Amino acid sequence: MSTTAMQMMEMHSDAMQGMDLAVMQECIEACAACEQACTMCAGAMAITPEMAMCAAMCQNAADLANTMMRTMLRPNGMNGPAMMAMHQAMVVMCMSCADECEAMAGMSADCAMCAEVCRQCAMACQKMIDSMLVG
Amino acid sequence: MSTTAMQMMEMHSDAMQGMDLAVMQECIEACAACEQACTMCAGAMAITPEMAMCAAMCQNAADLANTMMRTMLRPNGMNGPAMMAMHQAMVVMCMSCADECEAMAGMSADCAMCAEVCRQCAMACQKMIDSMLVG
Amino acid sequence: MSTTAMQMMEMHSDAMQGMDLAVMQECIEACAACEQACTMCAGAMAITPEMAMCAAMCQNAADLANTMMRTMLRPNGMNGPAMMAMHQAMVVMCMSCADECEAMAGMSADCAMCAEVCRQCAMACQKMIDSMLVG
Amino acid sequence: MSTTAMQMMEMHSDAMQGMDLAVMQECIEACAACEQACTMCAGAMAITPEMAMCAAMCQNAADLANTMMRTMLRPNGMNGPAMMAMHQAMVVMCMSCADECEAMAGMSADCAMCAEVCRQCAMACQKMIDSMLVG
Repeated sequence: MSTTAMQMMEMHSDAMQGMDLAVMQECIEACAACEQACTMCAGAMAITPEMAMCAAMCQNAADLANTMMRTMLRPNGMNGPAMMAMHQAMVVMCMSCADECEAMAGMSADCAMCAEVCRQCAMACQKMIDSMLVG
Repeated sequence: MSTTAMQMMEMHSDAMQGMDLAVMQECIEACAACEQACTMCAGAMAITPEMAMCAAMCQNAADLANTMMRTMLRPNGMNGPAMMAMHQAMVVMCMSCADECEAMAGMSADCAMCAEVCRQCAMACQKMIDSMLVG
Repeated sequence: MSTTAMQMMEMHSDAMQGMDLAVMQECIEACAACEQACTMCAGAMAITPEMAMCAAMCQNAADLANTMMRTMLRPNGMNGPAMMAMHQAMVVMCMSCADECEAMAGMSADCAMCAEVCRQCAMACQKMIDSMLVG
Repeated sequence: MSTTAMQMMEMHSDAMQGMDLAVMQECIEACAACEQACTMCAGAMAITPEMAMCAAMCQNAADLANTMMRTMLRPNGMNGPAMMAMHQAMVVMCMSCADECEAMAGMSADCAMCAEVCRQCAMACQKMIDSMLVG
């Protein structure tokens, strides 16, 4: 997460409706990393027919990671049920994408690295879910 | 949904893993309309402090609508659990956004129209969920 | 372009800073069609190494088409120089993508169809440029 | 830019068609920061009618920054003319957005910070243009 965005977020912490700022910043960071790794994984493949599903799933994960990140960056739009539902979708998307990438890891170093970043993103989203259940 | 995209989708119907094509095309159409209405609602407001939440929620809904639409447009990436989780998130997002827009409808004709489009999108996503549960 | 978004746009025509509404609605329609065709072209390929460049260029074109469309859907953000520069970029992106898709058209019906939609989008953006130069 | 994406990019440096990797990584970083700051600026405003243009322009800049970043993250899609045209559009968009944010800086600390990030992004894109002209 960029330094400026982090400072802006801290200025608006009271609009954040009880979100745990530290957990959310970590999750924004993980989503940004997931979007970048998945975009590059899909856009760098020495593409073969076996890779087609992996490329499309990575592009889906990249799009959702970006949307998830933006939702956390809009203090005025914090809506509990929508945030919860999106984080749940992001966990499923990241785990499915990580599984597919892992299956391709023997053929592609990109996929092995991308799988790892997707799993970290799933964990960061799960931490957000846990913190919202408590908060 | 554009005529060309619809024709392309029909050429790839066997990659669609048991998705109901007619229900999916209707849902793509509803997501495209939701993205356009929400983008315009957020970007046309004679903005006042009361409108700030509505603008941010509409922008969140526009982003998710686009991601949802793209996921349905990638035949190679059809993954049941990820599709299901995304449609569930989209229903919640659309209903929350429609409620907020409806609360602003007295002040803004955009919000009244946007609320209606969001509800239609929620229904189209619910139909996708129902068809996946049966399929 | 969805009926509701078109009605909303007409309500805000005086915020449109001298844009030609009919030309702009046609361009929004062309960008929406371009995003859908390019997303599907990239996400449906029976991918082979020769197709890798085409898939990545289609995904680039889909992303820019969406951004271009959104910029035209935000009446409050109409900024002449930014609009002009984006339309110029979109013409170049669409023509490059159409050329690459056309080179693949013998191997893929998707690519032939996608090339055509990209050329139409380039023309619609050129019409916007022409109308802004006159207006 | 995330560490993993940077490592993946280095693995694919020969697909980068003569792009200067160091300049491009700096530009990806600047676009990511621009998307985050602009999204937050638009989504955090204690919105007043004077702010409406700033919010819409920031959202336009955020969308283009994301598209610009993704284009640099797809080694298979590197197309010189399209890259050049996009960077030129991004310079204009960032400068227009920075000007509008700066005009609002007296009313909003977000806008002052966002203006600065937009100018840095414009400079990073200009460096890419310069490196492509030489390369």
